[in-house]
Amino acid sequence: MKVLVIGGCGFIGSHVVDRLLAHGHAVKVFDRQMERFRPPLEGVEYVTGSFGDRMALIEALAGVEAVMHLVSTTFPGTADLSPTTDVQDNLIGTLSLLDAMGGLGISRILFLSSGGTVYGLPDIVPIPETHPLRPINSYGIVKASIEHYLEMYRRTRGMSPVVIRASNPYGPRQGHAGVQGVISTFLSRLNAGQSIEIWGDGSVVRDYLHVTDLAELCARAVASERVGPYNAGSGQGTSIRQIIEILAAVTGQPIQPIYKPGRVIDVSHSVLDVSRARTDFGWQCGMPLLEGIQATYEWVRQQ
Amino acid sequence: MKVLVIGGCGFIGSHVVDRLLAHGHAVKVFDRQMERFRPPLEGVEYVTGSFGDRMALIEALAGVEAVMHLVSTTFPGTADLSPTTDVQDNLIGTLSLLDAMGGLGISRILFLSSGGTVYGLPDIVPIPETHPLRPINSYGIVKASIEHYLEMYRRTRGMSPVVIRASNPYGPRQGHAGVQGVISTFLSRLNAGQSIEIWGDGSVVRDYLHVTDLAELCARAVASERVGPYNAGSGQGTSIRQIIEILAAVTGQPIQPIYKPGRVIDVSHSVLDVSRARTDFGWQCGMPLLEGIQATYEWVRQQ
Repeated sequence: MKVLVIGGCGFIGSHVVDRLLAHGHAVKVFDRQMERFRPPLEGVEYVTGSFGDRMALIEALAGVEAVMHLVSTTFPGTADLSPTTDVQDNLIGTLSLLDAMGGLGISRILFLSSGGTVYGLPDIVPIPETHPLRPINSYGIVKASIEHYLEMYRRTRGMSPVVIRASNPYGPRQGHAGVQGVISTFLSRLNAGQSIEIWGDGSVVRDYLHVTDLAELCARAVASERVGPYNAGSGQGTSIRQIIEILAAVTGQPIQPIYKPGRVIDVSHSVLDVSRARTDFGWQCGMPLLEGIQATYEWVRQQ
Repeated sequence: MKVLVIGGCGFIGSHVVDRLLAHGHAVKVFDRQMERFRPPLEGVEYVTGSFGDRMALIEALAGVEAVMHLVSTTFPGTADLSPTTDVQDNLIGTLSLLDAMGGLGISRILFLSSGGTVYGLPDIVPIPETHPLRPINSYGIVKASIEHYLEMYRRTRGMSPVVIRASNPYGPRQGHAGVQGVISTFLSRLNAGQSIEIWGDGSVVRDYLHVTDLAELCARAVASERVGPYNAGSGQGTSIRQIIEILAAVTGQPIQPIYKPGRVIDVSHSVLDVSRARTDFGWQCGMPLLEGIQATYEWVRQQ
């Protein structure tokens, strides 16, 4: 099928494109800029434009059968600084996309949501998809609102939305400016001989998922007829302190992190129950954390 | 205390102003226009302006200790026609209000949410405040998003938000253009000798609350230090068919409604569990439905 990947030049998007090509799909990419770490791929059609540019988006939508919406103009750690911008860019931007799709008769959409933020403080861990959505930061609030609208458009406007609630993805081609993911940020700083800062005491537990595993799930999900939310995680919790130990082993250097006060907004423990994705797509996280971090370190060293 | 009532000239707002005055508070009202059914009230300061006009809002906020946010530019039945407008006007408008309050050091806010839409299709009835928020129409999605942001602002920015999730309010001074409430719409049509239309088979059950009861709860809640959501309903479910029977008794005329196909978005059964408001505010619905409808009919006949 012909798929438009919005945000297809980003960290996750570039891996999703790889998996779509591997599955034999025709791929068109819409993004603000070309990929940062690779030249353009053979056989992929690239359209550059801003997510807020409705006409550019409509043009990009022409002739596609499904849309993968992987774009966010904000990050979990920074969206709270301007909720208005977050809502304007991402929520209204997505409604505009849905309206454009409706006008062109395109009903299939995969939306990349956030398993780490939409649930808020979890009642149970690992968290199933049926857990209430009680986001406590702007990033999660906007993602949850988009999910609600997708469900409303499914009920009333014939859309066919599937939602992937990703945990903490990591791997090659992740930005390392300090806003996107601890593994890439830490590896990049270690590689440059810099110190590592930790917010809180390092006990915060997250569910780290290698980006190729996430991309594979996205590729399977969009080509299916399934609708509704799917958690995407490893199903395993790892504390920041454990990550530091693995990084020390992988880089072969002792690490002395600098501890800083924890943020009020941090959820202390977040691990996803991924049995629904296993049941419906025969999918599970295939890359062990140690191996995934080794591969990421290899990539960081080559940059 | 000095309270700014945003939307204080509307149906619910005008009754809230009455109850605030009865409780001895100083009242300032911000609304697009003056009250439709009454002259301006003695001792109330009126400021006219649009909710989207940030500077007018900031001026109105000067000198107040608490804000009651009762405004919605959309209705449950019509918001779905333009979700983008709904988000723009109400969600971004509210974020703008919160930022203005933050800048002026005003932390107390009461937000009027919607007990009939934020829960979506309920798992249990009567619905407690702890029920997941799974709205399936735009009105409810925006209300739920605002609630999430209020909680985020409580955690991270020192706001003190209390949320009233109202069921189906009815009573004098309700608009009867057909978008706001079945009781007023039906009474107004009966009074004009017009026919009554029902979407679906009349089995839809709602929780009808007389507006003076709702206003009393709002007046108590804003002056308290309680935070978080409170359901506001009668705790009793009444079907549309039962409403028709009461209307026939009250107006003394036989009623032959015209039945139309039900809407996909309608929740079939919605009744709120109001024990939290009873426990924390000693509040409960005081007006029996029959008596409330009689009083509303009296008012409709005088218009």
